[in-house]
Amino acid sequence: MKPTLKAICQAVAGAALAAAGGAAVQADEGMWLYNAPPRQLLQERHGFAPDDAWLQHVQQASVRFNSGGSGSFVSEDGLLISNHHVGADDLQKLSDAQHNYLRDGLQARTRAEEKRCLDLELNVLMSIEDVTARVKGAIQPGLSAEDAFAARRAVMAAIEKESLDKTGLRSDVVTLYQGGQYHLYRFKRYTDVRLVFAPEQQIAFYGGDPDNFEYPRFDLDICLFRAYENGRPAKIQHYLKWSTTGVAENELVFVSGHPGNTARQLTVAELEYQRDQRFPYTLARLNRLEVLLTAWSARSAENARRARDMLFGVQNSRKARDGMWAGLLDPQMLGGKVAAEQKLRAAVAACPTRQDTLSAWTRIAQAQQVIAGTHPVYGLLEGQHGFGSTLFGIARQLLRAPEERAKPNGDRLREFRDSNRESLELQLFSTEPIYDDFEQLKLADGLGWLIGQLGYAHPLVQQVLAGRAPRERAAELVTGTKVKDVAVRKRLYAGSPADGAAARDPLIELARLVDAEARRVRKIVEVQEEVKQQAYAQIAAARFVLEGTSGYPDATFTLRLAFGLAQGYDEDGRRIPYQTTLAGLYARAAEHNHLPPFDLPPRWIERQRKLDLTTPFNFVSTADIIGGNSGSPVVNRRGEFVGINFDGKTQALGLDYSYTDRQARAVSVNSQAILEALRKVYRADALADELVRGKAK
Amino acid sequence: MKPTLKAICQAVAGAALAAAGGAAVQADEGMWLYNAPPRQLLQERHGFAPDDAWLQHVQQASVRFNSGGSGSFVSEDGLLISNHHVGADDLQKLSDAQHNYLRDGLQARTRAEEKRCLDLELNVLMSIEDVTARVKGAIQPGLSAEDAFAARRAVMAAIEKESLDKTGLRSDVVTLYQGGQYHLYRFKRYTDVRLVFAPEQQIAFYGGDPDNFEYPRFDLDICLFRAYENGRPAKIQHYLKWSTTGVAENELVFVSGHPGNTARQLTVAELEYQRDQRFPYTLARLNRLEVLLTAWSARSAENARRARDMLFGVQNSRKARDGMWAGLLDPQMLGGKVAAEQKLRAAVAACPTRQDTLSAWTRIAQAQQVIAGTHPVYGLLEGQHGFGSTLFGIARQLLRAPEERAKPNGDRLREFRDSNRESLELQLFSTEPIYDDFEQLKLADGLGWLIGQLGYAHPLVQQVLAGRAPRERAAELVTGTKVKDVAVRKRLYAGSPADGAAARDPLIELARLVDAEARRVRKIVEVQEEVKQQAYAQIAAARFVLEGTSGYPDATFTLRLAFGLAQGYDEDGRRIPYQTTLAGLYARAAEHNHLPPFDLPPRWIERQRKLDLTTPFNFVSTADIIGGNSGSPVVNRRGEFVGINFDGKTQALGLDYSYTDRQARAVSVNSQAILEALRKVYRADALADELVRGKAK
Repeated sequence: MKPTLKAICQAVAGAALAAAGGAAVQADEGMWLYNAPPRQLLQERHGFAPDDAWLQHVQQASVRFNSGGSGSFVSEDGLLISNHHVGADDLQKLSDAQHNYLRDGLQARTRAEEKRCLDLELNVLMSIEDVTARVKGAIQPGLSAEDAFAARRAVMAAIEKESLDKTGLRSDVVTLYQGGQYHLYRFKRYTDVRLVFAPEQQIAFYGGDPDNFEYPRFDLDICLFRAYENGRPAKIQHYLKWSTTGVAENELVFVSGHPGNTARQLTVAELEYQRDQRFPYTLARLNRLEVLLTAWSARSAENARRARDMLFGVQNSRKARDGMWAGLLDPQMLGGKVAAEQKLRAAVAACPTRQDTLSAWTRIAQAQQVIAGTHPVYGLLEGQHGFGSTLFGIARQLLRAPEERAKPNGDRLREFRDSNRESLELQLFSTEPIYDDFEQLKLADGLGWLIGQLGYAHPLVQQVLAGRAPRERAAELVTGTKVKDVAVRKRLYAGSPADGAAARDPLIELARLVDAEARRVRKIVEVQEEVKQQAYAQIAAARFVLEGTSGYPDATFTLRLAFGLAQGYDEDGRRIPYQTTLAGLYARAAEHNHLPPFDLPPRWIERQRKLDLTTPFNFVSTADIIGGNSGSPVVNRRGEFVGINFDGKTQALGLDYSYTDRQARAVSVNSQAILEALRKVYRADALADELVRGKAK
Repeated sequence: MKPTLKAICQAVAGAALAAAGGAAVQADEGMWLYNAPPRQLLQERHGFAPDDAWLQHVQQASVRFNSGGSGSFVSEDGLLISNHHVGADDLQKLSDAQHNYLRDGLQARTRAEEKRCLDLELNVLMSIEDVTARVKGAIQPGLSAEDAFAARRAVMAAIEKESLDKTGLRSDVVTLYQGGQYHLYRFKRYTDVRLVFAPEQQIAFYGGDPDNFEYPRFDLDICLFRAYENGRPAKIQHYLKWSTTGVAENELVFVSGHPGNTARQLTVAELEYQRDQRFPYTLARLNRLEVLLTAWSARSAENARRARDMLFGVQNSRKARDGMWAGLLDPQMLGGKVAAEQKLRAAVAACPTRQDTLSAWTRIAQAQQVIAGTHPVYGLLEGQHGFGSTLFGIARQLLRAPEERAKPNGDRLREFRDSNRESLELQLFSTEPIYDDFEQLKLADGLGWLIGQLGYAHPLVQQVLAGRAPRERAAELVTGTKVKDVAVRKRLYAGSPADGAAARDPLIELARLVDAEARRVRKIVEVQEEVKQQAYAQIAAARFVLEGTSGYPDATFTLRLAFGLAQGYDEDGRRIPYQTTLAGLYARAAEHNHLPPFDLPPRWIERQRKLDLTTPFNFVSTADIIGGNSGSPVVNRRGEFVGINFDGKTQALGLDYSYTDRQARAVSVNSQAILEALRKVYRADALADELVRGKAK
């Protein structure tokens, strides 16, 4: 932020934005930073502003699932809750041909029955420090983009390493406002996390793909875990008190979680790139994978079990991206973005020192064009879309880790920095089951996708195929590799680059074959991202000046606080109430003659009469959420857990680009329904008691 | 065919091909022309050659379904049999929200209950006349490709019109050997065709997508129709006698049907185009449609019913094309093609008058490059992939018909030639049900595909969208058009181009908007196809000379005769027997716990004990078949119906490019199983009796 610009422009800006109608936040918009909460806005709109103690409590009760998702502590004995679809990765990895926990659920009746997740890491945000000045200070004016990128990567790695050495906490420098600010986030890590309870997927994801991203809903999308330390349940200071009264209509609620990725600050040039290249490519790839996995799953129950979590993820992504692409193809949405950008540029143009900032949009467009030029090679090689198997990812890590470790910390590819070592090793040495047939399927499909994108005659494609048909090549690679064996992984990881080469592992050799090109395109993208970051930082600085402090940065899978009202909406001339009940679940099943995906698990049929069917089940609120918020606690003014977010209604898919409270809604499970189901359907009274009391017996 | 070339080259050729190992047919290869049957080959391999009477009988008992597929007459009272999946189009169109004939089957107990198909046309081939000399004679040497195309189109239309006027029979000039020969086919048409019997889709397509193109199989893929003339069952002279003894192991069988399209004579340049552009494009489009239709079908039973036939077709095409693309990506297959082409070129090069023919491969490659340059615009606009709805197709016909009718017959787009008028009108005035929601879904998806392929900013895309989001635009077009009304269609079809313009129908206007560009790319393709046809004719002439008369042309959805042995095969070290039994069906259902797609229709469970479970159900043969052969009768030496072809085992998908009898097999339903099911499961004794007796009671 340049104070001179600020001083000079403030007066100008006021006039410009008044004319433009302002670009401030709308209604209950915002994924706010915990160190910059919208107290004034909250006070004005809802007559309540959380104090520091409230914020610290909710912040430290919030949990990030590094596998992708959010959660919260709900007992002093380490119990935490997230979504079933967040825990799906762990449920899948713990299952085998005899135990399908993902489909059938899991219920630990004793501590001993709690099952340790194979490679799950949880993070709790302990502190935030603004390191913008130090990061930006490391970039000398006049540096080339390439040198600036290297300097920035080095200073970030250094800050993280220092912090880790000093505090022992996981330390990540987070880029906010597309490079406008840099904050150091310190996390407490939990890596001994055990599964306590999961319902059947059929009730967690009731209504399946058709009801996904829709409302009204009837889903028990929950999964309970327990964090352990030193072999015993972790003692938790900040956990959320469980509400037994749920949420009232129009009540103010907060959502504390980790929205993954929004694009609200992006320039029109970037949005057009997404519309014209990224989404068509991604949707084509997801459609291909969905057909592949669906067809393979239909061949046998065991195939279906092996592919289940991946297929769910692919379908979920496909539906989300369909909606997001539809948002970009809506002339109203993009038209609004064009108008807003023109207003901001006009405001900047009205400012004497405007030239440099004004060129920021052009620089972003140019950088984006270079990035687009690497498309789709970047995704195919560095993004591994051309090799789509778990084993290839492992082989690449084993190739790169020894090479990268030999470099100074600040010069390494970012995932190999010292401060990320423990997290990297947790993943790499995971004992998750790997199935040859499934790996071959995915790898052969990846090779087909590579051929389709680059063309069969491309020299790299020819080298990759090595004279074989894709299926034949995939079979020889998967059956030939030794990296399935975790002991082999540990040995190669600890060894030198020469040891890796001497192993002559066919998959590592494949990773080596494409590595120069993969690194080359990655570097192009990284350098251009640096160009963009510098330009976005200037735009962000101008926006700070022009819009004051009312803004919040685009989501980056770091902790944010959203708020809103538990409120229904009008659709097609009908009022949709803010919450559903258990009775509605049974009505919906009957309406569809109990046919999939609207059938009910046997226990829910057997025990229907035990349930209080008036219990609120799911509810919506106007809080501003996006993918990654899955599993976020919904809390009331008193900081109590009143529900858990699990989805956004279709129109919320457009929230990637801009907020609206017209029909977009966050969809959550009510805290009361969770208790009712645990007690009456699952006979898990001990667990329900722990939730209500906030501690185990 | 140039006699001089022939005379000069014959000696040379003998030597060249002997050295090359010959490019003659292999084992039971061949989709033979009825006017050039492989009598000598059959006599040598199998000690039996059909005589003229045999050929005429089987030819005229064979039926082409113009909706795509084959069939045969099996009673003198007009009864004919095809596959359930060939009849699916008719079953779908006759169904409504209360009657799901496609899923549940249909059984007419009386003549009055036989349901007339809405727009089905059957063709029976009555005669073949070689018109090569007249067609080729119309192309003066030195004509430009454009003029040659026009001249060829004109002479073909003239021949067809003359023949129609003279005989009253549907008359089509068929292009064979990629332009090496032209034959005039005359067909008797049946347009009053009624549905008599269809089983449940679950037994017709037992095993679903997973078992499709696989073996062993257990499918009752049959559908029975009756042809009517003047409101009464047609009297049929040539119908197949039903065999009550089925087929013995290693027995010689014939398959008489309409293979749709093979690519065995294509040059390597064309195969590479298919591998690099056509298949990646087509598979991406099919994957997208499959996901769209599957997701939409899951929303309600009525959605599923409306989309059922289309979804089946999409899945079937996707699996077929996956296999065909895999064939093209197999270096062995393409390597064989490269070698064969080199041998043929070397043989031609050894021939004094070789220069002109030698350049044929280059001309084809160049033409193919131009055609590739229109890709994917041709598919999007002329192929309607960008507008994927039934209504758009109707609107385009209504736009073009008055324009084309104003031109001389020989100058029109080929589908509007006089000799095709009746068939065109049958389709255009069909009363098949059209659903607004389904049309909107398909049209919006088509628009999305158009955007993804051409880019959002493309001027034509912008004009097509008219400032709307795709879904909004699709909704406004579908709700606004009047062409749903058959009376409106008839009026606009009969009117002048000005009448069409005055109607201001939004879908016709959309068709008009893209028509100039659609016609432009079509013309490019047609002219380049002419270039290719001339070049292929030269290659074909050389091949005739070099390989003698042992060849057969690529499939063109015209009647062909294939032959082979009912024979099992070895796979993964196991011998797979040539036929399955009804007992195997129940075993397979049990093996999969009766879960979809391996569940059984209720009647098959109830009546299991009535069945003779030793009855042969499905069998395989080495006959050379491909898509379009579906429903072809399998006949024995005595010309009796012993089964009906319905599928090819996966390896048969490669048959598009070359024949192999290693594991590729034609899969058929045994004639005995049909009788057993009709009598015991469906209690359709009258129908079974008609099959056995060859006439109704």
